Amino acid sequence: MPVYADPTDGLAVPVTLLQAWTARLVESVGTPADIAADVAEILVASDRRGIASHGTARLPNYVALIEAGVMDPTARPIEDPGRPALRRFDARNGWGHHASRVAVDAAIAAAAELGTATSVVHNSNHYGIAGWYALRAAQRGMIGISLSNTSPLVAPTRSRQPLIGTNPIAIAAPAGHFGAFCLDMATSTIPRGRIEVAARRGELLPVGWAIDADGRPATTPEAALAGALHPLGGEEATGGHKGYGLALAVDLLTGVLAGAAFGPNILGLFSTDGPSNLGQAFLVLDPAAIGTREAFETRLEGYLDQLVAAETVPDAPGRVLVPGEPEAEAERRADERGLVIDAVHARNLTDLGARLGVPFEPAATVDPGAG
Amino acid sequence: MPVYADPTDGLAVPVTLLQAWTARLVESVGTPADIAADVAEILVASDRRGIASHGTARLPNYVALIEAGVMDPTARPIEDPGRPALRRFDARNGWGHHASRVAVDAAIAAAAELGTATSVVHNSNHYGIAGWYALRAAQRGMIGISLSNTSPLVAPTRSRQPLIGTNPIAIAAPAGHFGAFCLDMATSTIPRGRIEVAARRGELLPVGWAIDADGRPATTPEAALAGALHPLGGEEATGGHKGYGLALAVDLLTGVLAGAAFGPNILGLFSTDGPSNLGQAFLVLDPAAIGTREAFETRLEGYLDQLVAAETVPDAPGRVLVPGEPEAEAERRADERGLVIDAVHARNLTDLGARLGVPFEPAATVDPGAG
Repeated sequence: MPVYADPTDGLAVPVTLLQAWTARLVESVGTPADIAADVAEILVASDRRGIASHGTARLPNYVALIEAGVMDPTARPIEDPGRPALRRFDARNGWGHHASRVAVDAAIAAAAELGTATSVVHNSNHYGIAGWYALRAAQRGMIGISLSNTSPLVAPTRSRQPLIGTNPIAIAAPAGHFGAFCLDMATSTIPRGRIEVAARRGELLPVGWAIDADGRPATTPEAALAGALHPLGGEEATGGHKGYGLALAVDLLTGVLAGAAFGPNILGLFSTDGPSNLGQAFLVLDPAAIGTREAFETRLEGYLDQLVAAETVPDAPGRVLVPGEPEAEAERRADERGLVIDAVHARNLTDLGARLGVPFEPAATVDPGAG
Repeated sequence: MPVYADPTDGLAVPVTLLQAWTARLVESVGTPADIAADVAEILVASDRRGIASHGTARLPNYVALIEAGVMDPTARPIEDPGRPALRRFDARNGWGHHASRVAVDAAIAAAAELGTATSVVHNSNHYGIAGWYALRAAQRGMIGISLSNTSPLVAPTRSRQPLIGTNPIAIAAPAGHFGAFCLDMATSTIPRGRIEVAARRGELLPVGWAIDADGRPATTPEAALAGALHPLGGEEATGGHKGYGLALAVDLLTGVLAGAAFGPNILGLFSTDGPSNLGQAFLVLDPAAIGTREAFETRLEGYLDQLVAAETVPDAPGRVLVPGEPEAEAERRADERGLVIDAVHARNLTDLGARLGVPFEPAATVDPGAG
């Protein structure tokens, strides 16, 4: 996930204030308090980790789904028949964040007993950042893998049509003084939002990001937005077929395995034409099953210490990074100085709060220059 | 994995003959018959699937390890303490193929009972193609994931030093009339062998394949061979940090989790300086735990039917492919017409067989033009 710099014209909001307000807003549209608490925690976690595209900026989209009757804010997930280490949850078209939190917690509990366990979810909705669920396992000393399918925006290698989602993969594990290893990536070269940023900035695109509507390399953001994203690796000569295979593997383990929608059959995540019926999967492994969690963590920490000490390439902007370091740094900054949200984001939350009778009043703004 | 065209100057050898000879040769260096049968089956499977780099062409390397006393051909894997769904096997520095076959079979049996199970292996050696183990689960109606760490040939994003392996990921599942979905990929843009091919052909390299010894993009094969491979995605602007993260995640689930060597600590796979102590991991999920295997396979087949029918890009060499299709086609051809091995490969097997008293006499060669 790309971590964006704080906007210069931004408003700094204390994290606790934003999270409490988000929970109240989500409750105001009919969500039970415990479900709203999960949603608020996960959306604000995305903002804190510098991934504004998956956080509270999406609240107007979720509310639109609920108001259109396309998503049920009151739904509680139920567990379908399964086996001890492969469980299936029916999100019943409720909040994806809550159903996924319940599902990953079930996998964590089963892994603590059996060593490895998987939960899959069907009839689900957008679950926010994949990394949050993987980190939930890492916080308990385990390895967590979090997968979801998404709207079809990516063209399989050789296809000119977008038929597969940007299907994210997140993998996390505890990593000593690094906090956690947390890879959280879309299986496309870049997310669609990065092309929208390029459009606003008037940038040209490098080869490997996207194709145009005719299936040729897209050189402008406008051409890319009318075409499709490339899977990770870009064109076939640079390994794009591997990114395509990974995106498809994620769909196989989520939509296809869980019996949810998949590939070209998924309506847009925020389409009000009908439910998304997304699939998610959570695989958890407990290192304590075959050793101690401490020994595992110490090995991983030592490995990462070797990597960050590597000699760098001539144009490197800094040392080698551990996956998740930029997000953890953004999180620390947000918790210390407040979350800096941009003017459009702030106005959207203000408007939404006013309309729903839950005023967004970040009176206690903090100075982003301080701390 | 790249599937290479049959060499034009090749010798066509019946598959059964090559496999029987390989088993006898492997036995001749002290390997018990049942272990040799596994090794022969898996090495020849690689040849049949068009991946000559991981098949019988490697026999001289394995024999060199055994003759140097660096690998123990008599060792049988033992199971360490674990839990029902996370098991650990000690390969005791024996054949990686056999220990991995035992480990994946244990995961398949446990998944059939519990739904999901994982086996990891330590003190292991090169296990051949990752896909064979994933396909073993697919042949039983399940989803198989196969991972291994390997020699450090890949530079993490921003590093100029090769510190991570090309760590493969294979995922397979049964797929109706497609046979199986089988993604089998190195997490580098291309394998080192592809650069050796470019060197023989005098080709220049595209950006995104490799860096030179100074950390700059390698434009010639010679510069790349003195430098390091790029992870999938190439440079940072085209998502190389994701390929780096994936390579690291594979190492985390294999070397780090299993307590084997990892990253820069791995000696070359075929180095006679000491044991490799590789780690492997096998994750198996049984769709029957939450539905029926048939329904899962039907969903996957229908999805793949949608993908292969996509409109193609202007320069596409054919329709959209399902991961594993080129390998399955190579396998069919080999089983029908005989395995076509190139002249150097044939000479190496002949020399090795003569030296070990197991003559390589593919008298019953077949005509590669027939069938």
